[in-house]
Amino acid sequence: MKIEAQWMRGGTSKCWVFEAEHLQEGGASLDVLLPRLFGSPDPRQIDGVGGATSTTSKAVILHRPAGDDVDVEYTFAQVGIEEAAVDWGSNCGNGSAVVGLYAIEKGWVLPSGDVTRIVTRNTNTGQIIVQRVGTPDGALADVPDAQMPGVPFPGYPVGLGFQDPAGRTTGSLLPTGSATDTITAGGTRWTVSMVDAGAPVVMLRAEELGLDPARYDSWRAGVELQLDTLELVRRQAAVRMGLSPTIAGAARAIPKLAIVAAPSEVEAGSFDANVLMLSMGKPHPALAVTGGIALTLAASTPGTVMHTITGKAPGTTLRLRTPAGMIETWSEEHNGSLLVGVDRTARTIASTIIHLPEVPGSAVAASLAGATR
Amino acid sequence: MKIEAQWMRGGTSKCWVFEAEHLQEGGASLDVLLPRLFGSPDPRQIDGVGGATSTTSKAVILHRPAGDDVDVEYTFAQVGIEEAAVDWGSNCGNGSAVVGLYAIEKGWVLPSGDVTRIVTRNTNTGQIIVQRVGTPDGALADVPDAQMPGVPFPGYPVGLGFQDPAGRTTGSLLPTGSATDTITAGGTRWTVSMVDAGAPVVMLRAEELGLDPARYDSWRAGVELQLDTLELVRRQAAVRMGLSPTIAGAARAIPKLAIVAAPSEVEAGSFDANVLMLSMGKPHPALAVTGGIALTLAASTPGTVMHTITGKAPGTTLRLRTPAGMIETWSEEHNGSLLVGVDRTARTIASTIIHLPEVPGSAVAASLAGATR
Repeated sequence: MKIEAQWMRGGTSKCWVFEAEHLQEGGASLDVLLPRLFGSPDPRQIDGVGGATSTTSKAVILHRPAGDDVDVEYTFAQVGIEEAAVDWGSNCGNGSAVVGLYAIEKGWVLPSGDVTRIVTRNTNTGQIIVQRVGTPDGALADVPDAQMPGVPFPGYPVGLGFQDPAGRTTGSLLPTGSATDTITAGGTRWTVSMVDAGAPVVMLRAEELGLDPARYDSWRAGVELQLDTLELVRRQAAVRMGLSPTIAGAARAIPKLAIVAAPSEVEAGSFDANVLMLSMGKPHPALAVTGGIALTLAASTPGTVMHTITGKAPGTTLRLRTPAGMIETWSEEHNGSLLVGVDRTARTIASTIIHLPEVPGSAVAASLAGATR
Repeated sequence: MKIEAQWMRGGTSKCWVFEAEHLQEGGASLDVLLPRLFGSPDPRQIDGVGGATSTTSKAVILHRPAGDDVDVEYTFAQVGIEEAAVDWGSNCGNGSAVVGLYAIEKGWVLPSGDVTRIVTRNTNTGQIIVQRVGTPDGALADVPDAQMPGVPFPGYPVGLGFQDPAGRTTGSLLPTGSATDTITAGGTRWTVSMVDAGAPVVMLRAEELGLDPARYDSWRAGVELQLDTLELVRRQAAVRMGLSPTIAGAARAIPKLAIVAAPSEVEAGSFDANVLMLSMGKPHPALAVTGGIALTLAASTPGTVMHTITGKAPGTTLRLRTPAGMIETWSEEHNGSLLVGVDRTARTIASTIIHLPEVPGSAVAASLAGATR
């Protein structure tokens, strides 16, 4: 088997991008084929294209639907490393960021104007994401020059505009019906906002954790000491948002938790809010795209913790300070919908033909696998 | 710039394989071009083809010399990860293992017989390595099925035969003139063999370290407690082998150190020696190819620590138990030379065209690099 694939950087991840029909040869299930292509199961993925980390063991599968309302449909696959398994359960912002660029590079969408819009639908979540790819004078630059935190080399600018993202998990932007609520956890009362946009996120002020808004560099250490308490807050929020019937049953992945604070007086001109997110129980090194969407909609919703910090009206950009640097989000009206967006950069690293001598799932593959045991 | 490259697994490493002329476009120095292709400097190599570990940030550059005594010349490059630099100072056994297979796959060498021999010269060291690639009935198998420790999937069998490897660093197989010597370190006298073949290696018996030959699984923990003493032994050996004028000046990389013991009575039929190597001050997870060469020649040299364990005559195979499993070495006469070899497996993972919009070292690249600071 030889399988065509494009290796692309999207944001701070590396993704393998496949056109759906290229994965159908051989008839193997994608749950079997993708792990084998990536070299899984193997903590080093030494015999495949995977990079042996969660941010480099990702695939994006593209499909051009027949209708003309969506340019590209795509499915995100988080490919297991030590397990020969694929997680299809969520979308990925970095993985999404390669889709519009791919469509332009392959001629599926013709660039026009300084920004070309590509309408994409993520099949994992059903979310429409309108991608804005920079195309000065109607073409991709020969040498891309957009920078982003966490990536030391430039790429093409890609904006990911989530169309009407509010309430996609719970049915409502504010699932409790209130912009702020009080949660009691660890013997303390916490003022939080619980917001569902992009992903469900519970937000609270840094000051309530005893963190100094003017000393952002010190937050991480302060947060590490309070992870147990924050997990209690997060689990209470899961129940309040209707995501789990019980505190014990709250999922690890949602809601996410965001710690926020206004900039100090000195910094007030250079950004709108300090943000440190917790994802899977740990401080996030930057800002998950979905978390950025929730923070942005919260900033334009009167009464939320974010709105008291930023006081922003919809339609403007929001500058968030994260551990990786400044990340800008935006919102705009587009064809009667609201787009809420986060900017990334993307670049094609290599055009490839992946070699795979045995067809996974076949009798030959089974006998070879037996030989390794 | 678009640069053709083959991504191959050699042994337990992944290597990017370039034909020399494909790297000349653009005129950039390889010390600048390779790090940029790999995404360095960046601990994650997120914008390039590097895998962000020493075993996945390797390049092999091929050249077909005009003369007919050597089929392929190759240069090994260890590409820096956090530094934009290339180390050209040594060869790599895993990197070497892709060269013969590449030559067959590209039609540079026509396979013939069940084993095809490809004569290669490594330019980092000047070493001729005759590669034996399995080609049953005169062709590469459609589905390769050779296994090796540390790699969960099969590949093509590749034997790396080092031609006349003795004394390449010091001028002599036994640089002290003796098959065994006594070294005093840490208040104890150690019986060692100092052997130069493939690389300089000092060998000592597990029993002298208080390790139980019958309990190989316990060695690692026992060795971890004696690393300081072993480093003293190694440094004394560096001086005795003429590699360093002083103990303080001994290099970290050479000599390597090997701890060896005979198999227990129960295990005697299944392998020839237990081996645990120290490389760069740490227990090696398997066996460096060059260390395997030294152990094999030592086993056929009367009076060495290895020979008293194995009692082997030249020309046979040697089965070494390593932390990763059994590794077999061999020696044979070939055209009047002695080949000493270690077996690996190799496989092409992908045929690729690497994209690189800016030419490294150019004015445009410099201005983009400036923008990231």
